[in-house]
Amino acid sequence: MAPAAPGARPGEFEVIARFFAPLAKGEAGALGLTDDAAILAPVAGNEFVVTVDMLTAGVHFLPDDPPDLVARKLLRVNLSDLAAMGATPRAYFLALGLPSSVDVAWFEAFSGGLAADQAAFGIALAGGDTTATPGPLVLSLTAIGEVPAGSAIRRSTARAGEDVYVTGTIGDAALALCIIDGRLRDLPAADTAHLIGRYRLPEPRVAFGPALRGLASAMIDVSDGLLADLGHICETSGIGAEIDFPQVPLSTAAARLVAGTPALAETVATGGDDYELLFTAPERTRGAITAAAARVGVRVARIGRTIAGGGVRLRDAAGLPIETARAGWRHF
Amino acid sequence: MAPAAPGARPGEFEVIARFFAPLAKGEAGALGLTDDAAILAPVAGNEFVVTVDMLTAGVHFLPDDPPDLVARKLLRVNLSDLAAMGATPRAYFLALGLPSSVDVAWFEAFSGGLAADQAAFGIALAGGDTTATPGPLVLSLTAIGEVPAGSAIRRSTARAGEDVYVTGTIGDAALALCIIDGRLRDLPAADTAHLIGRYRLPEPRVAFGPALRGLASAMIDVSDGLLADLGHICETSGIGAEIDFPQVPLSTAAARLVAGTPALAETVATGGDDYELLFTAPERTRGAITAAAARVGVRVARIGRTIAGGGVRLRDAAGLPIETARAGWRHF
Repeated sequence: MAPAAPGARPGEFEVIARFFAPLAKGEAGALGLTDDAAILAPVAGNEFVVTVDMLTAGVHFLPDDPPDLVARKLLRVNLSDLAAMGATPRAYFLALGLPSSVDVAWFEAFSGGLAADQAAFGIALAGGDTTATPGPLVLSLTAIGEVPAGSAIRRSTARAGEDVYVTGTIGDAALALCIIDGRLRDLPAADTAHLIGRYRLPEPRVAFGPALRGLASAMIDVSDGLLADLGHICETSGIGAEIDFPQVPLSTAAARLVAGTPALAETVATGGDDYELLFTAPERTRGAITAAAARVGVRVARIGRTIAGGGVRLRDAAGLPIETARAGWRHF
Repeated sequence: MAPAAPGARPGEFEVIARFFAPLAKGEAGALGLTDDAAILAPVAGNEFVVTVDMLTAGVHFLPDDPPDLVARKLLRVNLSDLAAMGATPRAYFLALGLPSSVDVAWFEAFSGGLAADQAAFGIALAGGDTTATPGPLVLSLTAIGEVPAGSAIRRSTARAGEDVYVTGTIGDAALALCIIDGRLRDLPAADTAHLIGRYRLPEPRVAFGPALRGLASAMIDVSDGLLADLGHICETSGIGAEIDFPQVPLSTAAARLVAGTPALAETVATGGDDYELLFTAPERTRGAITAAAARVGVRVARIGRTIAGGGVRLRDAAGLPIETARAGWRHF
């Protein structure tokens, strides 16, 4: 076939050969993206962990976000789900609904973002589907990870009387959304850049998740919000939890905002999109958890404890309850 | 939470619990759809075959198609990809982009369609993502099947001098699209119903695909069109092929149309969406293929042969070439 004009939209098979087949070189089971399906088996003694996320322009990312950042966020939110099960990344599948505005430059940037994060996180493309849509850009990614059989860390296995931990910092993405929609203004430029960056490009805890196998009793990643996601652990485990808000780790930018406007504590505790690991663990693993965090270079904070009963309570420095109007993000 | 008003859109967690969790009961690794991901391992000695398809309203199905039929078509096009690798269905993952028009009745019909076909084809839901979209309804399905390790039937392994076969009948879906867009009119009502039904609800050859392991040398399902898909086998295998058009199996309705308008032969040979199996096999397996087809109750026709060289030629009853202007369906 004749090569497409510069900038014009190449055909499906050219797009696959030029932009996506190179991303599949690391996975033999991808069959070079030339077959009906991929062929994959876990390493002997392992099992697969499989997760799916769909992101839509105007809903989950901004239509003018750079395509390479969109690609990396798409991959990272799925990697975060794998990490939350204690799984190591293996391969991913991509289904794209592409509006007619998508051109060569878009494919170059998008596939470039995937290539960068594939290298960073050790995962390869194994298959997909490229389709046209009259609607907004829509991206669906299915990620497959591996764990030794029986060692995946679930949500439903927390017990009362355990510690509650979270990685990184909480609330940056929710505060970034407040900046984007104009509710927060006049921040120092560096704080704005930090918060927006955390929203656009979360850091999946790909090394720390697997390091918690045998240590954490239950785990989830913070996507719906700290309170809501701890609520998911509590509901499925049949327990309750208390969080000491002063122990919740905040970035310098977030801490400055909360200090100036204490009501933003609710935004921090209920906002979503942090993609940090939230987990429970028995007291006896404290030393091992601290050591594992130091080994992989992840900040981890002990923020509360699980209790008998139900519900999730947020407490201030005096131990008094902080009331929150909303529990967390709902997808629709 | 308070139950939603009749017909109103329930919340995400209610939708999952009410309509989707029941579909996951057959797969323990789905963890009741309450965790970040599913946990799956192939049966000992097997490997997984994984495929993804995305369907969008107005592109791949009609916006007013009944939701149960849309659900079944979504599942079936993926089951057809698994069958084309010789794989037996195991589990699937669903990512939904839902416009605000989707209500309880839609979820009931959609999940009902999935339930019916899960039972018919032996597969269970294992996970997914439900999201909102301001655009058209978009559905992405990742299907996982199993094959004994090393026995998946690929596209790239056909050799020259083999037979070419196809299951069922070819061209019905392409002719249905001609009816839908008004290019074909005044058919007998029964013929219209047959053709439209074939377009809306393809029949994945879930039993016959695995029965061809060890018999077929290469296989694909007919989604882009008979000529284009045989072209995919030929290109990846480095061979060519000839099809005898009079041997291509047509439904009674399609045969009537082609007899009246011989130019429709091109529509039949190049139209997509048949979801029949197209495969190559050495001559010595003819008896075994016929027996396998009889055993699972699938019609199979020998329609040509592979040759050295390249390209796919279509021949008429006299063995003369039939020229076709277009090779097959491109997704964009």
